Amino acid sequence: MIVTLLTDFGTSDYFVGAMKGAVLAANPRAQLVDITHEIPPQDIEAGAYTLLAAFDAFPAGTVHVAVVDPGVGSSRRAVAAEGGGHLFVGPDNGVFGHVYERVAPLRVFHVTNESYFRPRASETFHGRDVFAPVAGALAGGVSAEELGPEIEDFVRLSFARPERGPEGTLVASIIHVDRFGNCVTNITRQDLAEEAIKRGARLLVGGREIRSFRRFFADEGDRHSEPFAVWGSAGFLELAVFRDSAARVLGAGRGQKVEVKTV
Amino acid sequence: MIVTLLTDFGTSDYFVGAMKGAVLAANPRAQLVDITHEIPPQDIEAGAYTLLAAFDAFPAGTVHVAVVDPGVGSSRRAVAAEGGGHLFVGPDNGVFGHVYERVAPLRVFHVTNESYFRPRASETFHGRDVFAPVAGALAGGVSAEELGPEIEDFVRLSFARPERGPEGTLVASIIHVDRFGNCVTNITRQDLAEEAIKRGARLLVGGREIRSFRRFFADEGDRHSEPFAVWGSAGFLELAVFRDSAARVLGAGRGQKVEVKTV
Amino acid sequence: MIVTLLTDFGTSDYFVGAMKGAVLAANPRAQLVDITHEIPPQDIEAGAYTLLAAFDAFPAGTVHVAVVDPGVGSSRRAVAAEGGGHLFVGPDNGVFGHVYERVAPLRVFHVTNESYFRPRASETFHGRDVFAPVAGALAGGVSAEELGPEIEDFVRLSFARPERGPEGTLVASIIHVDRFGNCVTNITRQDLAEEAIKRGARLLVGGREIRSFRRFFADEGDRHSEPFAVWGSAGFLELAVFRDSAARVLGAGRGQKVEVKTV
Repeated sequence: MIVTLLTDFGTSDYFVGAMKGAVLAANPRAQLVDITHEIPPQDIEAGAYTLLAAFDAFPAGTVHVAVVDPGVGSSRRAVAAEGGGHLFVGPDNGVFGHVYERVAPLRVFHVTNESYFRPRASETFHGRDVFAPVAGALAGGVSAEELGPEIEDFVRLSFARPERGPEGTLVASIIHVDRFGNCVTNITRQDLAEEAIKRGARLLVGGREIRSFRRFFADEGDRHSEPFAVWGSAGFLELAVFRDSAARVLGAGRGQKVEVKTV
Repeated sequence: MIVTLLTDFGTSDYFVGAMKGAVLAANPRAQLVDITHEIPPQDIEAGAYTLLAAFDAFPAGTVHVAVVDPGVGSSRRAVAAEGGGHLFVGPDNGVFGHVYERVAPLRVFHVTNESYFRPRASETFHGRDVFAPVAGALAGGVSAEELGPEIEDFVRLSFARPERGPEGTLVASIIHVDRFGNCVTNITRQDLAEEAIKRGARLLVGGREIRSFRRFFADEGDRHSEPFAVWGSAGFLELAVFRDSAARVLGAGRGQKVEVKTV
Repeated sequence: MIVTLLTDFGTSDYFVGAMKGAVLAANPRAQLVDITHEIPPQDIEAGAYTLLAAFDAFPAGTVHVAVVDPGVGSSRRAVAAEGGGHLFVGPDNGVFGHVYERVAPLRVFHVTNESYFRPRASETFHGRDVFAPVAGALAGGVSAEELGPEIEDFVRLSFARPERGPEGTLVASIIHVDRFGNCVTNITRQDLAEEAIKRGARLLVGGREIRSFRRFFADEGDRHSEPFAVWGSAGFLELAVFRDSAARVLGAGRGQKVEVKTV
């Protein structure tokens, strides 16, 4: 009965309120939870990352609505997906790309059954008129199969993965900078083994070298403003500075290249 | 049992949290939904617009609390209104002006029955001490009639409507700029018939002329950064630019004059 | 069954969404309410003030989670407290300091029972992995005693109280500036009696003197842009300017000294 919402709508306009109304009009007992509405406008990859990081804290059966949708009103499809016990509703544009990689079994449906849409659905606000009422219906027990035909050619995000460079270098990038200035890279434990770190891995960010790998953000050790690397709670390697902003100290932002050299 | 909240309190202070506590203290089963708390401080017209755009997505029986209240602590009245199956609670200062125009039948009550207020109500925070507990009571089945006498002289917002200028020109204005830079005008389909658009209407904004009317935000056609007009989902004509901010491209903001010339 | 959340996480990241998921995973019937997520990063005192101002609007039995936690991952303890009919969960770092002063009887427990934590709790995100599931458990009827041993040496915030200066002067400070620019001081009615105000108290802020004490923010009287003092709804003396920002007019911010001279 839980319906989460993730959008790029911000919270200053009426958009999010109207979406919530539409979920509740379809299913007055839905329990609404905001993940965030501050995805940078039309930044599908950022939406995909944030949804990945948040969704599996929720109990099985949760319906996740994600609306980062530059193509609204065009011919992009609406999809509903089942995977890992969770349900997902939104545009077929890659916003579920990270999630699709993690959940199994995965089934994706093209949402075409207008009987679950808001009456007189607009062409410009599918968040309220298509995705919200469909999410309300799913939360009320309608099965994804009732929404339309299953499809195989749904959009998988071709999101950046770290690549092997010359001499075993790993070429990665910063995919998110959080409120505290921590820089989330796209490096997972599969990309960088604990053994390699122990043997002495180095990170190169801009002109700067980082050699310190810590277990905690507030780990013991020197408390200077030296950047260090730490495994973040979403499973990605993050660059941090003790009680300071790594983004500021490193002069780094989203998209910045990060090279890993191992010995 | 749904209670929506719309305020100009922002989300950094304790105000919204305390209002929510007061609704729940009056009615622990109320289902709270934020419309927005980012109305520009004390901007009653902006609050009225946003409430209008959002409220009717919610199911009948919803209680809408709107607190944009520069006169708190003075002699302005508190009101509760019934209209179109919805309920409204807030100050009698025009914040419900747009809604009053749309709902029927409409009844408005002067809220005077202090037995529904928070004990020891403060004079500076009616959001928490008057409107929130009254909303909780309404959501719990108390009728608006129990709150105080019905009134006829409630404040109707004298909000700007497009006016006919010389030679059939329509003189309108921008009433809201959304997160994406789309500029919402106060022009409705009643002001500008589809026929007139087909015959070749032009919009003048600042020194700029807009001749393109589209069906969708992401409509086909040229994808240059030319501004175009489109009917927004709240029923008003909006000025937009494909994947860009019309406000930035047009150098326009809230209050900007928009002239419509028809042939 | 109500669980409130107060953090310094902001609302742009996945943090708050993941915490909410973790509360609901532990207790799907919990009713989640945001107090704020805009506490300045790692500002424990600001968190303590906001929680104090908001918590007692909620009904008895509410569980309040507060996460302003620069020491996450270090040896600081997790605590759960019972007081005044409310429950509190968070780090043992002073964030409950103001609340501890107001509620009685007060019992504080060191949260050590990992059976209530999220499985495989991370070392960097106790908001999601420790505090949220523990709050869900408390909201579901688990008693604080089951979480770990009662302690007496919990951290009480040594927050600034107004001090008596020479010649009976009261030396206070601004502890918060709200969205409207009102400056909240740490002066309570116990520090400044109504009698002293009536005899003619003066406030000195920066180089400026304030002699006007009003009953309401929108009180009658001159409507010039003169700063005045007014008792705010949280029980502290606030500095305000009619329809303007006192912070701007006074050039004042958080931490600014405020002297009170009485005759």
